[in-house]
Amino acid sequence: MDTIRLGIVGYGNLGKGVELSVKQNHDMELIAVFTRRDPDSVKTRGTPVYSVNEISLFREKIDVMILCGGSAKDLPEWSPKIASMFNVVDSFDTHAVVSEHFDAVDRAAVSSGTLGLVSGGWDPGLFSMMRVLGNAILPSGTDTTFWGPGVSQGHSDAVRRIPGVVDARQYTLPVVSALEKARNGQAGNLSAREKHTRLCYVVAAENADKDLIRDTIVHMPFYFDEYDTTVIFIDEETMKRDHNSMPHGGSVIRHGVSGGEMNQTMEFTLNLQSNPEFTSSVLVACARAVFRLHREGKRGAITMLDLPISTMSGLSREELLKHYL
Amino acid sequence: MDTIRLGIVGYGNLGKGVELSVKQNHDMELIAVFTRRDPDSVKTRGTPVYSVNEISLFREKIDVMILCGGSAKDLPEWSPKIASMFNVVDSFDTHAVVSEHFDAVDRAAVSSGTLGLVSGGWDPGLFSMMRVLGNAILPSGTDTTFWGPGVSQGHSDAVRRIPGVVDARQYTLPVVSALEKARNGQAGNLSAREKHTRLCYVVAAENADKDLIRDTIVHMPFYFDEYDTTVIFIDEETMKRDHNSMPHGGSVIRHGVSGGEMNQTMEFTLNLQSNPEFTSSVLVACARAVFRLHREGKRGAITMLDLPISTMSGLSREELLKHYL
Repeated sequence: MDTIRLGIVGYGNLGKGVELSVKQNHDMELIAVFTRRDPDSVKTRGTPVYSVNEISLFREKIDVMILCGGSAKDLPEWSPKIASMFNVVDSFDTHAVVSEHFDAVDRAAVSSGTLGLVSGGWDPGLFSMMRVLGNAILPSGTDTTFWGPGVSQGHSDAVRRIPGVVDARQYTLPVVSALEKARNGQAGNLSAREKHTRLCYVVAAENADKDLIRDTIVHMPFYFDEYDTTVIFIDEETMKRDHNSMPHGGSVIRHGVSGGEMNQTMEFTLNLQSNPEFTSSVLVACARAVFRLHREGKRGAITMLDLPISTMSGLSREELLKHYL
Repeated sequence: MDTIRLGIVGYGNLGKGVELSVKQNHDMELIAVFTRRDPDSVKTRGTPVYSVNEISLFREKIDVMILCGGSAKDLPEWSPKIASMFNVVDSFDTHAVVSEHFDAVDRAAVSSGTLGLVSGGWDPGLFSMMRVLGNAILPSGTDTTFWGPGVSQGHSDAVRRIPGVVDARQYTLPVVSALEKARNGQAGNLSAREKHTRLCYVVAAENADKDLIRDTIVHMPFYFDEYDTTVIFIDEETMKRDHNSMPHGGSVIRHGVSGGEMNQTMEFTLNLQSNPEFTSSVLVACARAVFRLHREGKRGAITMLDLPISTMSGLSREELLKHYL
């Protein structure tokens, strides 16, 4: 089997996860990490580090670049630019502008003869696959996506910006009775409040007005006002001890009615101890698929909806037919 | 959007389900049902019925044939033969000889310029996709497949063949504690007995020796002797009232450990009120994918592992990106 030569752009949590994941895949080799920082300041687990300015020197040496930047500022710039030199995989997750991002990568990749997978990960990504699969098989039905139990970075950051807050961790929790309704096809009209609750652990500064902090959180527009939110104040030590990991997960539930008025339910659930490491593992499997599909002649932008699952797997067709079908 | 013209070969439970499912998909049209019986004796919900001997007359009129026969005798003969005239979808599910079946369809389809999807459905099929997806994303891990709660036709038939049994229904039930072990990565060594139990509802003939029937069931090799089996005798009326549907389902659970020793679990569950209608719905979505992939130039045999999920969906690329990604 060919060895797939990978590069990482950006070495935050996601980039670190990709480095770990590649070690579990014997048909892959990690050639380099590229960074905007001083390369000497970036300590990897053994992968050589280069300045992102040197990336074009690796055109013949890397098959697929995995772009581990943020969706707000990094990827809109990186993905089309790097797709004009390499096959790429990114985890762009700003749902509202994904079509524009897709088109930008498509233009760059088509004109350069490369293949770019956008929006890899679990949502968008695996959950998108499950939503479309459910819709395709049970067209007469509804799907409901639940997130959590897990840490939402965006909501945690929003709480941290409140004056008097030293640290915060926000957990999103699905409402158990809503999960049950979704399984029975009764979740179509559920409000945001009926589907999820929010739980905030907050370290307050000494002498901070805790009632004011709590009040500011629960009424914060968009982030909290549409949910039932519980705020629990803890000390810094407890925060470090009990809330230092990034668990997440969720479910996509499709309830449909088939021809003879039969209830049919499909449910996909993730329970992740490390959200970034799992996302990284998905991106690495996507990189294998991109490598293979590019070799078969595919060009332009794609999403995980365009991936045959066999192309994501390191197993041979014989193994798949014999042991996994 | 093009209308996809479908045919059904075989009009049992599966064929009836396909007819119902096609009605839910607005980009499809059901042209004909083909049968080995006297066409006049087959009553459909409006679809014209022809003898299977006339099938070659429909070469220009049908895009994909959905083969609704049994895996033991029908499909090994039908699938290669019909794939030499039409694109086909079948639900071949004899795991032990699936490679041989795949190769036979591949040879017929390659030489005729058609595309044949074999082993569509949910297991093999959707469950195969989930097993491979789990393996691709979390290569360091184990997957466990559970079946049920649901009716096993094979086991029900086996009980019905026992002298003194008038009717029987066998339910396969997953062991709840084993599901929990699988989620935690502790299911690697579970025996058949530890994963599933079996529950038989039996209508005995008058004066039949119920103890002997019970004994024959629980010691039946392959079918029951490796499981804890409960036998409950009921009367015919109760059987008809409470056990007249064919529910089924199950779960594929992948537990893996990602780089930093983090536990990650992926779980896919089906809960089906009608097993044949759901299988039919999957086959119909597969037929859409086969139609599209054939138009793109794909030839030979494939399985659901080779299907981009977008090809199974009747939604446009724009809708998928905007509302499902």
